Amino acid sequence: MIVIMNYRATDEEIDAVVKRLEKNEFKIHLSRGVERTIIGAVGDKTRLGDSALEAMPGVEKVVPVLQPYKLVNRLFHPDATVVKVGSLEIGGGGVQVMAGPCAVENREQLLTAARQVKEAGATILRGGAFKPRTSPYAFQGLEEEGLKILAEARAETGLYIVTEVMDAGTLPLVAEYADILQIGARNMQNFFLLREVAKVNKPVLLKRSSAATIEEWLMAAEYLMAGGNYNVILCERGIRSFETYTRNTLDLSAVPVAKHLSHLPVVVDPSHGIGKWRFVAPMAMAALAAGADGLLVEVHPNPAEALCDGPQSLTPENFTLMMAELKKLAAVMGRSM
Amino acid sequence: MIVIMNYRATDEEIDAVVKRLEKNEFKIHLSRGVERTIIGAVGDKTRLGDSALEAMPGVEKVVPVLQPYKLVNRLFHPDATVVKVGSLEIGGGGVQVMAGPCAVENREQLLTAARQVKEAGATILRGGAFKPRTSPYAFQGLEEEGLKILAEARAETGLYIVTEVMDAGTLPLVAEYADILQIGARNMQNFFLLREVAKVNKPVLLKRSSAATIEEWLMAAEYLMAGGNYNVILCERGIRSFETYTRNTLDLSAVPVAKHLSHLPVVVDPSHGIGKWRFVAPMAMAALAAGADGLLVEVHPNPAEALCDGPQSLTPENFTLMMAELKKLAAVMGRSM
Amino acid sequence: MIVIMNYRATDEEIDAVVKRLEKNEFKIHLSRGVERTIIGAVGDKTRLGDSALEAMPGVEKVVPVLQPYKLVNRLFHPDATVVKVGSLEIGGGGVQVMAGPCAVENREQLLTAARQVKEAGATILRGGAFKPRTSPYAFQGLEEEGLKILAEARAETGLYIVTEVMDAGTLPLVAEYADILQIGARNMQNFFLLREVAKVNKPVLLKRSSAATIEEWLMAAEYLMAGGNYNVILCERGIRSFETYTRNTLDLSAVPVAKHLSHLPVVVDPSHGIGKWRFVAPMAMAALAAGADGLLVEVHPNPAEALCDGPQSLTPENFTLMMAELKKLAAVMGRSM
Amino acid sequence: MIVIMNYRATDEEIDAVVKRLEKNEFKIHLSRGVERTIIGAVGDKTRLGDSALEAMPGVEKVVPVLQPYKLVNRLFHPDATVVKVGSLEIGGGGVQVMAGPCAVENREQLLTAARQVKEAGATILRGGAFKPRTSPYAFQGLEEEGLKILAEARAETGLYIVTEVMDAGTLPLVAEYADILQIGARNMQNFFLLREVAKVNKPVLLKRSSAATIEEWLMAAEYLMAGGNYNVILCERGIRSFETYTRNTLDLSAVPVAKHLSHLPVVVDPSHGIGKWRFVAPMAMAALAAGADGLLVEVHPNPAEALCDGPQSLTPENFTLMMAELKKLAAVMGRSM
Repeated sequence: MIVIMNYRATDEEIDAVVKRLEKNEFKIHLSRGVERTIIGAVGDKTRLGDSALEAMPGVEKVVPVLQPYKLVNRLFHPDATVVKVGSLEIGGGGVQVMAGPCAVENREQLLTAARQVKEAGATILRGGAFKPRTSPYAFQGLEEEGLKILAEARAETGLYIVTEVMDAGTLPLVAEYADILQIGARNMQNFFLLREVAKVNKPVLLKRSSAATIEEWLMAAEYLMAGGNYNVILCERGIRSFETYTRNTLDLSAVPVAKHLSHLPVVVDPSHGIGKWRFVAPMAMAALAAGADGLLVEVHPNPAEALCDGPQSLTPENFTLMMAELKKLAAVMGRSM
Repeated sequence: MIVIMNYRATDEEIDAVVKRLEKNEFKIHLSRGVERTIIGAVGDKTRLGDSALEAMPGVEKVVPVLQPYKLVNRLFHPDATVVKVGSLEIGGGGVQVMAGPCAVENREQLLTAARQVKEAGATILRGGAFKPRTSPYAFQGLEEEGLKILAEARAETGLYIVTEVMDAGTLPLVAEYADILQIGARNMQNFFLLREVAKVNKPVLLKRSSAATIEEWLMAAEYLMAGGNYNVILCERGIRSFETYTRNTLDLSAVPVAKHLSHLPVVVDPSHGIGKWRFVAPMAMAALAAGADGLLVEVHPNPAEALCDGPQSLTPENFTLMMAELKKLAAVMGRSM
Repeated sequence: MIVIMNYRATDEEIDAVVKRLEKNEFKIHLSRGVERTIIGAVGDKTRLGDSALEAMPGVEKVVPVLQPYKLVNRLFHPDATVVKVGSLEIGGGGVQVMAGPCAVENREQLLTAARQVKEAGATILRGGAFKPRTSPYAFQGLEEEGLKILAEARAETGLYIVTEVMDAGTLPLVAEYADILQIGARNMQNFFLLREVAKVNKPVLLKRSSAATIEEWLMAAEYLMAGGNYNVILCERGIRSFETYTRNTLDLSAVPVAKHLSHLPVVVDPSHGIGKWRFVAPMAMAALAAGADGLLVEVHPNPAEALCDGPQSLTPENFTLMMAELKKLAAVMGRSM
Repeated sequence: MIVIMNYRATDEEIDAVVKRLEKNEFKIHLSRGVERTIIGAVGDKTRLGDSALEAMPGVEKVVPVLQPYKLVNRLFHPDATVVKVGSLEIGGGGVQVMAGPCAVENREQLLTAARQVKEAGATILRGGAFKPRTSPYAFQGLEEEGLKILAEARAETGLYIVTEVMDAGTLPLVAEYADILQIGARNMQNFFLLREVAKVNKPVLLKRSSAATIEEWLMAAEYLMAGGNYNVILCERGIRSFETYTRNTLDLSAVPVAKHLSHLPVVVDPSHGIGKWRFVAPMAMAALAAGADGLLVEVHPNPAEALCDGPQSLTPENFTLMMAELKKLAAVMGRSM
């Protein structure tokens, strides 16, 4: 770490910082400039407490040199992680498409959707049984009944299931049915939930919070890995910006960046990213071209009757058209799909 | 609600929207312009499912007319809510200052801090026993031991206790000790937690998420009220912007706006808002001048040794100076403190 | 336009709004709800002054129905505009790549770059002679000498020239040399400059400001078209968000959205969008997959010696590799390149 | 400056960076860690070209140690600058209120407004003759006629005049009439304009761009000072965030921060900051409490008839009430007003 001292910090102030670092077994490189003294320090940062050095008199700022994530870091794990979901691989060069409705609304809706997305080439079925809703008056999901319907769809179609877990209390129930546990954007920093999901032997799809930097997203993944769950799939789904025409601002640069900084696979959810069905296909194409390992797409048999996210859901017809384009793109990029 | 149809939507498309609205018992006002048809609809929006109308063919956008929060809304509850914490009132014209360290680190640190902030005029003691930390390797709090130390400080000083609850599972434990339950910014949309806290008969301090609009913040409060807990205190603590010099961007306009839209009291946390102790006092002054009902301030006996948030913690001396300035300001504004 | 009145606005307040609208020849549709009165108004909004209705007593908010841009709007001009630059077409289904260094630094650097990008398949040469720099102490460009070097490169290679104009005063000079006039992101709302450039008979590349919504960007294009210049090329180059790892957040959703709302061609600058050369190629691929009509890419013979934007400049070798990938992608999308 | 090399950068890469720095007369401090080598470099950064080091092989990132602004920096000019406008002082402990309409609309409107704000205690009259408008179809200002009306108001009331200059071409005209030249938020990085205004012997009010960091704002001020104009007043007027209820997000933390980093006076424009008249007074109070040296407030004799910014303009009555509150606040803070 590098400690930049204030303009003309006193010798006493400099000494106090050096002594504290040395007491914590850091090796020190001192560089006295005319205007500023810089203290380079090599050692174990976790010995120091969080950000306490910045509170010492005479300290201007502390610049970290090493990235705070370790297990997630590609530096120490150069090979890409491949997450296995049954017979599928996420991150191994192929492209997996997870599709289905926002919420499980009833048996017929979900089974219809499952058959349609399977037919078009999806390999994983999405659908929420527990729904995080901004309004307490909105549909909150079918809960266990929804999970059972998902299991029935899996039995019929062979699709694997990705579904959201919102709370440590309902985690055992959701884990009983899901093939991939989804942690939603609003729960990306629900650290109790992360710690519990880390103990479950199931792949996790970790959505980026709409307010999270890439580093914070990777730190959330670090919670999962530090807790023992190495099967983490990162999912970009749009960040919050000042633009209001789109629901979020889909940050596709997060795909190559996260894959550079980390060895974990990265998938993209263009549906939440843009929020309007009309633009889902071009953004899905762009995500694949940027290097995404997979896509998470909302498809509903009848979007105009959907209980949630209708405006961003594709019809089965449009999903089928999009899949045909994606396959052509994957082929030219040398990716199997 | 107002439905704006696409440029030259067909008559069939317009009819389909009207029929669906009428089926759900909306009263319709149709306005056909040369370029656009507008459909005004008066009725119960919750009958319609979320945003499904926008997915109907020919619909350009749907503009809500009524605010989505009801119990929180000042329109239907013109008098300001006063939340009682023992003998204290929050929202009744007075100014309550909640102060103390980021985290309970040990008995001595917390008791020292409690005596110091009490001496300077604080009425409520803050301190975290469960800490939401970006890194899994950072200090995560003393948990129950921390709660016991807080209770001891209360017994000695008479200060009330505000402390964070992070999870439904530990809520009963935290509620046993806390006078005010704090819901942190990262949990503002942890709907499971909101629903459980709603059932507890304790005041709640609801921090605004760094990515939440004021409306979303009020909707989180609506979860609490809809679940039966009417003693909600809103807390602005900074939103995320592109500015990097400050930790967050303290949105003081949220104070008069939230008090205009809602009857709930609003307090401000300048420490997290700005992230550097040097600027905490001017922002606390500004918050009070903007109309805040109280302040939440980090004070540590020795910020340079703090296990978290040292750079934004005031020393007891600086806190005492700030309190003197705040009292003068409160007096001139006709506020008791 | 739709005027939503306050909860329980008085009849006098409603009447005053209606009278004012009628005086300005609006047709009125009044819809009185139990809680709110809504006033629909069809007419010429420019008669009313800006946003003055919102200042009238009893008015809650005014919702526009029509988009504020007319000439730029695809509604009234369904066919895509094709901008001709000599023998090239931008927007006609092909893909044009504009490449070259951030700044013209000297004759040799620019001519070398020009030959290299030409060889790799670029059709337009970029390079700044007037440079907008955050610091007054940074290199500000070679000015007219730079323009002459650009002209020499054009003469030798046959590449067309796109270069930035920063000010009405130097516009005649720049227009003498440029084939496409670039308006930089920081000048997107320099309305004096827009009005002057509108009078010049040259295509304009209009960069989106890092703080502009898509609507504001289209309104800037409306200035150009309203002033008589119909040859406008929109350029997305990243918006400002809270993410700090990338220089900006490249908003690729702006490509399909702007092409849906407007008939103008849209190109993408991935170099400024992401700010690190390593990620330029995947973002260029993504931009093309999202439907961009062209790309603007920084290429420097020796990025490590560049006077500006070195970290985001491709080497000629990496540019050549990227072009090969882009051509494969264009082919599969049915786009000529 | 500090250069952080990549994890396991080669010795050749490290040497190349060191040689380049030494060639440019930097003094080098090399610190080889197990995982990273850090190069500290003391010297004149302007010798190096912009950010070129980051483009060298093996370089991870370059961390600046010194702030890029020099003349603006409080480090080298510890005393606060006091800008004199005739007999007034801005920055000397007093509070100056600049008030008036968004635009000069006609003689009567402006003279009425001038008398009203003078009566209430304002010392400077604001009013735009050249207006930057998002739409080419909106009122663009009375231009020279507007300036003449402003001069007439000054002659009658004794108020000084602050008015916006949008372009180098009209600068001589505006400078003839204005006492303070205002550079609007959209022109904060119009470097041609900054360079020209720097040559004029008039105080400048420099608004912060809605997308500018505090550092970029100070760099714009550095352009003015480097060009010879030392009478710079900084003006915070709201930045762009995701919040849509307010027009902008007024960043009041910019007041104490800019005054800490720079010696220049800082004023606040709460009208643009929040965009709704109802909240202007609390935000003005907050600005003063945060330490602002003055305020810029929109006041219109009849906001509902205003040609621009009606919704955020105070009536003369509300302005008078606000001024009374501000005076009480100034008194308790020991500020003259």
